[in-house]
Amino acid sequence: MKPNSPALFLFAALALVAAGSAIAQQAPKPEALIKWRQSAFQVVAWNSGRIKSSLDGAYNKDQVLRSANVIAALANSGLSSLFAAGTESGKGWHDTTIKPEAFANTARFAELGGEFAKESTELVRVVSSGADAGAVKEQFGKLQKTCKSCHDDFRNAN
Amino acid sequence: MKPNSPALFLFAALALVAAGSAIAQQAPKPEALIKWRQSAFQVVAWNSGRIKSSLDGAYNKDQVLRSANVIAALANSGLSSLFAAGTESGKGWHDTTIKPEAFANTARFAELGGEFAKESTELVRVVSSGADAGAVKEQFGKLQKTCKSCHDDFRNAN
Repeated sequence: MKPNSPALFLFAALALVAAGSAIAQQAPKPEALIKWRQSAFQVVAWNSGRIKSSLDGAYNKDQVLRSANVIAALANSGLSSLFAAGTESGKGWHDTTIKPEAFANTARFAELGGEFAKESTELVRVVSSGADAGAVKEQFGKLQKTCKSCHDDFRNAN
Repeated sequence: MKPNSPALFLFAALALVAAGSAIAQQAPKPEALIKWRQSAFQVVAWNSGRIKSSLDGAYNKDQVLRSANVIAALANSGLSSLFAAGTESGKGWHDTTIKPEAFANTARFAELGGEFAKESTELVRVVSSGADAGAVKEQFGKLQKTCKSCHDDFRNAN
């Protein structure tokens, strides 16, 4: 087969189509990424609210553990992939509220993401250990601080 | 203080306000519940997509485990609370797609929710065990069947 034969061109074209398909599969559209991250943080908000309600009322270990598991699983899920280049602006369920700083200061953004993962994993550990509500409240406070730090620096009020 | 004194009425009124506030805290609005469940299932969809991509491509245990953990944590989180009475219709991010049957046949709805929890928990176990991609794919297929069963019976196409 000569280098410029039709068969080689066909092969090259098919390879390009296959590569394009693989890239398309690996790179969801920005709107999808924004919708997923907005959904993920809504789920975090739902579960933070449930933990707060339990701590403000009659503390229920099993209920709080279920919520803490959800937050920790999400915090450790690789959320940074939902903040890929191309998602600086755009609309998921609503216009993104992220600040440009998240894409300019990626080291700090990643650091805060790491703290979110660390403190939520620790919350699961504290709750699982059977600690009293006071100890759980203290660790939940640390987790909430990581949320606030990130929102202060990288999220516009909406 | 006489039973019908103004002070007693004031106390009773304040107690009612406090009780109302506690109830409001424990019972989020239907629109919030619908928004949270739509968010939760978007997060499931995101992570199912990531698992499928990894199984269709170069299987990566750690990545799949992160996604499986999210799905299992959500499936075991008490999602049924997001389908409380009053959420048969209404709008979260969009109009709910739930069918009336979910509220009429609650036993079957709960049963399918239980299967979703069981198969996603099992997926975490299989992935964690270091099983090969084939075994993970088989268990992921079982999980997907529980999604489809529930969608077929209880979700309108959107």
